[in-house]
Amino acid sequence: MERITVVKIGGNVIDSPEATARFVEAFAALEGPKMLIHGGGKLATRLAAQLGIESRMVDGRRITDRETLDVVTMVYAGLINKRLVAALSAAGCRAIGLSGADGDAVTSVRRAAGAVDYGYVGDIAEGGVNVELLRTLLDAGLTPVFSAITCDGRGTLLNTNADSVASAVAVAASRIAPTQLVFCFEKAGVLRDVEDERSVIAEITPDTYAALRAEGAISAGMLPKIDGALRAVASGVESVVIKQAEALLDAGGTTIRG
Amino acid sequence: MERITVVKIGGNVIDSPEATARFVEAFAALEGPKMLIHGGGKLATRLAAQLGIESRMVDGRRITDRETLDVVTMVYAGLINKRLVAALSAAGCRAIGLSGADGDAVTSVRRAAGAVDYGYVGDIAEGGVNVELLRTLLDAGLTPVFSAITCDGRGTLLNTNADSVASAVAVAASRIAPTQLVFCFEKAGVLRDVEDERSVIAEITPDTYAALRAEGAISAGMLPKIDGALRAVASGVESVVIKQAEALLDAGGTTIRG
Repeated sequence: MERITVVKIGGNVIDSPEATARFVEAFAALEGPKMLIHGGGKLATRLAAQLGIESRMVDGRRITDRETLDVVTMVYAGLINKRLVAALSAAGCRAIGLSGADGDAVTSVRRAAGAVDYGYVGDIAEGGVNVELLRTLLDAGLTPVFSAITCDGRGTLLNTNADSVASAVAVAASRIAPTQLVFCFEKAGVLRDVEDERSVIAEITPDTYAALRAEGAISAGMLPKIDGALRAVASGVESVVIKQAEALLDAGGTTIRG
Repeated sequence: MERITVVKIGGNVIDSPEATARFVEAFAALEGPKMLIHGGGKLATRLAAQLGIESRMVDGRRITDRETLDVVTMVYAGLINKRLVAALSAAGCRAIGLSGADGDAVTSVRRAAGAVDYGYVGDIAEGGVNVELLRTLLDAGLTPVFSAITCDGRGTLLNTNADSVASAVAVAASRIAPTQLVFCFEKAGVLRDVEDERSVIAEITPDTYAALRAEGAISAGMLPKIDGALRAVASGVESVVIKQAEALLDAGGTTIRG
């Protein structure tokens, strides 16, 4: 199979109808087999508030009780996923929406309660992405579109970090064909100076990353994203690119390689 | 391919966790390739009420404005569909949830506003079910699970009658292999006497249907269901069975043949 592109979009695209429409056009125009993973944006928080359910976040992660699980399942796997799939289809991209439960696509393990009980939150199991399902769908010319709702394989849905789903899907895809993972980001890439969009670091490797960290050239908030990207690369993904959604079809951004 | 079974369940199963659990066990145990279509039940009405959206029904059909479309997309294509898929997967049935937008599975046409404007409501287009997609998924050992949210192919999701989706999917399946369509019903079948569950009419054909109607032996509420079943049979479905969900694996119910 040709090179596969796996793209992840987050709230900054999802929360804006105009940004979503621009992204859909660009993603539909991407050549070759491809997959999309989307985050949730602010819609789940808004719906929870309308229903009188308090949204509690710890370190940027949503505490997911039973009611909140229902809300994120409705919003992520229902509304956002189906709107995206419908828009992609209209743009000529034969998309098929998946939660982790569909075709046992992504199996996760409920996170044990420690200092914080995150509730119905899952981390992707070792070998949790169903490579054969991805191969079947890609071979049929379909474009899988994943929400970050996964399943423990025993009937329980689990809220999962969308960046982690994207990385795991890209690692699985790399067993089918060389795979590039693209994280769409609010900024033009990883910046040396967060105030200066022109200070994009073009390439990061494990060696240069150590040097950049020693210099303090990378903001603390970016470190988990780059750590994740380097793990994906170490696990078989050809390269990870961090760039703006608007620049999906252009060169540029930060490329992370092994 | 072996004989395909297409099963439709409605609110009487969906609204009860116990009935759903019993149904999931039975459906998972059904042999051969199969597909499931589910209605919505009362959850959408309840969610709409919680959000202050008025539910308006005309002749049992929901008037679907923009806000209501979002609610039914969340509830039908999100919560109910993913809960069913997760439960089926846990029961050993590799289910894959689909709205009509997914893989262009079911394409519909928005109903023109007449005496009543139903809003975002669609009727399935001629040839609107994607036979090749069904073949791909069944060949891969997957069990498609459809919500009754379809898509006009131009990016707009449409609320659709679940019985109509079931019939159209069964007609499409019959182009792959002989297909039986099962409507799960609150009663044991079509009854001669609605008060007497033992008065099930075992078989209906176009000829006996005319006689039964002339006698007034069938309640008015059943006529659209039987008309739909006879149309499905005339369009290639081998037989349509109307029976209780609890009796899915048993003989019995009313069988409608051409």
